[in-house]
Amino acid sequence: MSDTAAQQTGYQAWLEYHRITPGELVEQYAVYSGIVCTEKDEVIQSAVLELSRGISKMLGKEIGEGRAVIALGTFGGGNELVDRAFGEETRSAVVHEGFAITTDQASGNIVVGASSASGVLYGVFHLLRLFSTHQSVKALDVIENPVNMLRMINQWDNIDGSIERGYAGKSIFFENNRITEDLTRVRDYARLLASSGLNAISINNVNVHQWETKFLTEEYLPDVARVAGVFRSYGIKLFLSVNYASPLEIGGLSTADPLDPAVREWWRVKAAEVYAAIPDFGGFLVKADSENRPGPFTYDRDHADGSNMLAEALKPYGGIVIWRCFVYNCKQDWRDRATDRARAAYDHFKPLDGRFMDNVILQVKNGPMDFQVREPVSPLIGAMETTNQMIEFQITQEYTGQQRHLCYLVPQWKEVLDFETYAKGEGSSIKRIVDGSLHGNRLSGFAAVSNIGNDVNWTGHLLAQANLYGYGRLAWNPELSAEEIAEEWIRMTLGGDEKLVSVVLSMLMHSWSIYEAYTSPLGVGWMVNPDHHYGPNVDGYEYSKWGTYHFADCHGIGVDRTKATGTGYAAQYKGNNYDTYESVENCPDELLLFFHHVPYTHVLHSGQTVIQHIYNTHFEGVERAEQLTAKWASLEGSMGELVHMHVADRLAEQAAHAKEWRDMINTYFFRKSGIEDAMGRKIY
Amino acid sequence: MSDTAAQQTGYQAWLEYHRITPGELVEQYAVYSGIVCTEKDEVIQSAVLELSRGISKMLGKEIGEGRAVIALGTFGGGNELVDRAFGEETRSAVVHEGFAITTDQASGNIVVGASSASGVLYGVFHLLRLFSTHQSVKALDVIENPVNMLRMINQWDNIDGSIERGYAGKSIFFENNRITEDLTRVRDYARLLASSGLNAISINNVNVHQWETKFLTEEYLPDVARVAGVFRSYGIKLFLSVNYASPLEIGGLSTADPLDPAVREWWRVKAAEVYAAIPDFGGFLVKADSENRPGPFTYDRDHADGSNMLAEALKPYGGIVIWRCFVYNCKQDWRDRATDRARAAYDHFKPLDGRFMDNVILQVKNGPMDFQVREPVSPLIGAMETTNQMIEFQITQEYTGQQRHLCYLVPQWKEVLDFETYAKGEGSSIKRIVDGSLHGNRLSGFAAVSNIGNDVNWTGHLLAQANLYGYGRLAWNPELSAEEIAEEWIRMTLGGDEKLVSVVLSMLMHSWSIYEAYTSPLGVGWMVNPDHHYGPNVDGYEYSKWGTYHFADCHGIGVDRTKATGTGYAAQYKGNNYDTYESVENCPDELLLFFHHVPYTHVLHSGQTVIQHIYNTHFEGVERAEQLTAKWASLEGSMGELVHMHVADRLAEQAAHAKEWRDMINTYFFRKSGIEDAMGRKIY
Repeated sequence: MSDTAAQQTGYQAWLEYHRITPGELVEQYAVYSGIVCTEKDEVIQSAVLELSRGISKMLGKEIGEGRAVIALGTFGGGNELVDRAFGEETRSAVVHEGFAITTDQASGNIVVGASSASGVLYGVFHLLRLFSTHQSVKALDVIENPVNMLRMINQWDNIDGSIERGYAGKSIFFENNRITEDLTRVRDYARLLASSGLNAISINNVNVHQWETKFLTEEYLPDVARVAGVFRSYGIKLFLSVNYASPLEIGGLSTADPLDPAVREWWRVKAAEVYAAIPDFGGFLVKADSENRPGPFTYDRDHADGSNMLAEALKPYGGIVIWRCFVYNCKQDWRDRATDRARAAYDHFKPLDGRFMDNVILQVKNGPMDFQVREPVSPLIGAMETTNQMIEFQITQEYTGQQRHLCYLVPQWKEVLDFETYAKGEGSSIKRIVDGSLHGNRLSGFAAVSNIGNDVNWTGHLLAQANLYGYGRLAWNPELSAEEIAEEWIRMTLGGDEKLVSVVLSMLMHSWSIYEAYTSPLGVGWMVNPDHHYGPNVDGYEYSKWGTYHFADCHGIGVDRTKATGTGYAAQYKGNNYDTYESVENCPDELLLFFHHVPYTHVLHSGQTVIQHIYNTHFEGVERAEQLTAKWASLEGSMGELVHMHVADRLAEQAAHAKEWRDMINTYFFRKSGIEDAMGRKIY
Repeated sequence: MSDTAAQQTGYQAWLEYHRITPGELVEQYAVYSGIVCTEKDEVIQSAVLELSRGISKMLGKEIGEGRAVIALGTFGGGNELVDRAFGEETRSAVVHEGFAITTDQASGNIVVGASSASGVLYGVFHLLRLFSTHQSVKALDVIENPVNMLRMINQWDNIDGSIERGYAGKSIFFENNRITEDLTRVRDYARLLASSGLNAISINNVNVHQWETKFLTEEYLPDVARVAGVFRSYGIKLFLSVNYASPLEIGGLSTADPLDPAVREWWRVKAAEVYAAIPDFGGFLVKADSENRPGPFTYDRDHADGSNMLAEALKPYGGIVIWRCFVYNCKQDWRDRATDRARAAYDHFKPLDGRFMDNVILQVKNGPMDFQVREPVSPLIGAMETTNQMIEFQITQEYTGQQRHLCYLVPQWKEVLDFETYAKGEGSSIKRIVDGSLHGNRLSGFAAVSNIGNDVNWTGHLLAQANLYGYGRLAWNPELSAEEIAEEWIRMTLGGDEKLVSVVLSMLMHSWSIYEAYTSPLGVGWMVNPDHHYGPNVDGYEYSKWGTYHFADCHGIGVDRTKATGTGYAAQYKGNNYDTYESVENCPDELLLFFHHVPYTHVLHSGQTVIQHIYNTHFEGVERAEQLTAKWASLEGSMGELVHMHVADRLAEQAAHAKEWRDMINTYFFRKSGIEDAMGRKIY
């Protein structure tokens, strides 16, 4: 692909490195005549390559004429410029993957130093970000450390090339039941991940089917090792999702009982084989006893037994077990109003606190249900004081428009991360739990389900790249604002035209609220078509086995999850949160129907009735979706024509589909409640 | 498979020929020492084979000792016994596929005579039916002619082995993208079809996909001819479903415009090639301009243009075009209440009356929608005085329980056939239209979508065999009662135990009404899960593009199809029918919601309100489904254990699933109407 064509497609994403037009900045950046690096480590060599490629692309020429250099290396790694630039105080402030950057005022040299090769790479990407967002590098004095230790991405890719909940083409990892031969695209993905700050990846779907189970065998391990090698050069550790029933399915054993000595031995041997092939292998990601996946429940064991068994096998090699808490009864009877899927993760795992080995991490979804456009924060996060936990987000837009609708998710994630849990009294925000600081966990961090596939622009909807980028940035530093991240992404990807930046920033920042407006109201969720989860279907999950109900009748709607009269879910929250959610008066509007069943005439804090809120938000949501198309139209000419057209098409589709949402939701509730829209708008 | 095993599986279906226990009947039947037949025609040889096989199986020995013979042959075909047995009056009373049977009182010989080889075969199957239902053959004096000329079955089989709307395994015709090598099973199917009276088959799905389009090419024609040969030996003509766009897809032309000379020439050449391979080829079955299939509309031509073009190509060979009238807008906007799918067939075709060639037959579904458990009769049937028409039923239980629920459909078909259309005043029943007598059509008849697959018992649910058998019998003679047909099938398939006969007969005869009771109420239809159409989903098709709505709100339900205030569909009916359907007072309860939107409190002719009718029928429907299991349980020991267990399993599944239907439907309407069940039963 030519550079121009690539730019027209978004393939380079935020590593586009747009040419900087002559002027003050070019002169500032062009002083650098070379890169000084003495270390041969492959991650550091990646850093050199990235830096050279990025700068020469921005300047339109190879580095090579100027009066200063960019020096990089690890502290004490042999690069004199690095060792001279940073004093002991700086060095000790930089932790494992962190970095420092300074501009030497005398020479004008920029020096990137770190205590590890990965740190050097992150430092270089930081420097490139400064360049490509057109910031001054004349007086840099930066120290950055990642806030979260594990910053992971989960691929839900299957060996047949399909991707569960993938909306951007087929897998870049697998095709024809093999691991892809040509790993060029995987390498480019590693660049994107590392540049946003990520350091871990699981490459196969958590639903591990027959073929993927064999990844642990010599038939596939050499290919897995090949992929691990690509990620290694960008400082990213490779994990595998494993099938809990592997000892049965590929081991020839008659059980997968975690307390069975033969099973334990099988996993020990298997771990040794994996580490022989991949010495820095990250570990296993496990979905067990969930949605028909096998697990320890089959053998009357619990999830501590199950995960500890795997942790024991991995421990000698420094490997870890990431154990998902998405465990619930997926064969519920819709007639049973006592069972509440929202309770399940807490009910299953909270009693096990203290029983997990220290190389087990529980991976908990951000909300108690499943990545709805609006959910409360999972009460399990922080509730286990002596257990490692990490949070799981979903970048792929399963329930938020499937990359056909614009939905910038960073604001949602920020709300979650800033949520006060009261786990240890005030100051117990989610971000302090998942960074390990609140409970002093040894292991902690972020995971998220990827939104990429082999579409040329990676994410189907070009603007959905901002979610992938934003996830990485937030995992690195949850204090970054959603606006800062969005603006970085826009400038790096689309360029620095100020009108463009301001318009796209506004579009991104409003998009979640717009999507929420015309879809499921007031936190109730799930009004989507079953299976594929795209498009409106108010009763789509109402009479199902999935534990996903709204209980709308001709009088009212919502799920009573109070302790007083409902399922008791609200009591899983601590302190003020319990009081807030338990009370219909105090419960925030946006979660009202998640916690309470109320009449359509119930008056919200906003002053509107529930039914009028539904009508209003759905009419307004469509208008706002239409405004997105108008805003984007105003940017014609300020970017490549193809990119502009591509996004314009998606936005037009979104605006049309938003009308489907509006009309189905409004019609459903008008027919059910019999209450007219106070403003007399058209409802069918 | 051993005979016993086969009997245990139902593979032989109604050709089981249960051993007749010694007694009066055996002595009566055992007098026959041989079969006298002088003709070598392959259909007559099939008749000989069937007769010999059937009798020896019933008697448990080869024919060969006795004082009389069974003689068979065509009139004047060289068999003296035949020629002696029937006088001129009888001969002239027997039409093309008819037959006469007589018992010669002097010799005791039974003589089967016919004017065609097929007639001989039908006569033999008739005789075998007498034997296997244990009737006296001492004084036979039978003349039978088929009432309908075309008695056809439509397979919806695809070349990949799948069957659209198939519920009994994979295709017996196709596997691995080829026509099946071993045609043993196809031959056994031909026996079943011929023995029930059928004489035509189309072997591939009316949705003709890429590969099946090539059936008309030399790549597939030899294999198609092989299949035609199997059916030929049982008097059954083979048809193919064809892709209207064939000239484009396999012909290399740039158009399929029916008025384009090159297109017409292409089809003429193609017809010549097909007839060169299969000299008695039946013709083409066509689904055009329907559900995304190509058709003449693409070229601004109408369906007379399209079908006549094909008819012209087939005419030199005596071939016919069967053109389906299932044409409607399948991308309707659910917000548009003026467009009515029920109107579509009439609106499309009625204006074309008189424009079709005489070797075109329009195939019209029995109802205006799509094989719902209850629909009015299609007003198009009989409305075109100078156009050949045939009726299409659906044996495969797409909307009637998918062969997991028991639903004997012959009573439904009888209601349709007996329906008075007033097409030419009183006496214009559907059966008189489709047998061609009312309008004096040259071509006419029955078609139906098959319910068989490669399940050992053919139909998945053993008792669903009665629908296939019943369809054939009814096509032969619409005057047969549903009870007669059911009883024949029971005796021939399961044996003649009187309790068994009476219990199964009662089960079959009530089954349609039971299924209707716990599914969609009062003719409204469509409350099923989209796509696969199994199981309850009240709003499943409510906000869809398929034209399938019930418009339930908190006040009432139903579709206003009156001329006065609705879509005007009711005005497509003639005479009294229009008056009956147009009036909410006169409209029969079972179709009320098809024609009218009424409040839940509307009082039916039954004296119940609509809402109470819904509750009552759904509670009763489940009770009655449970009674089916009890009735069947009482038959343990009166048939093979495996057969009994198989049906018991299906009935248990039905009873459980009926509860899902009951609870979802009742809950939906309780939540929507807010009206309590007068009897205070449990609604969720």
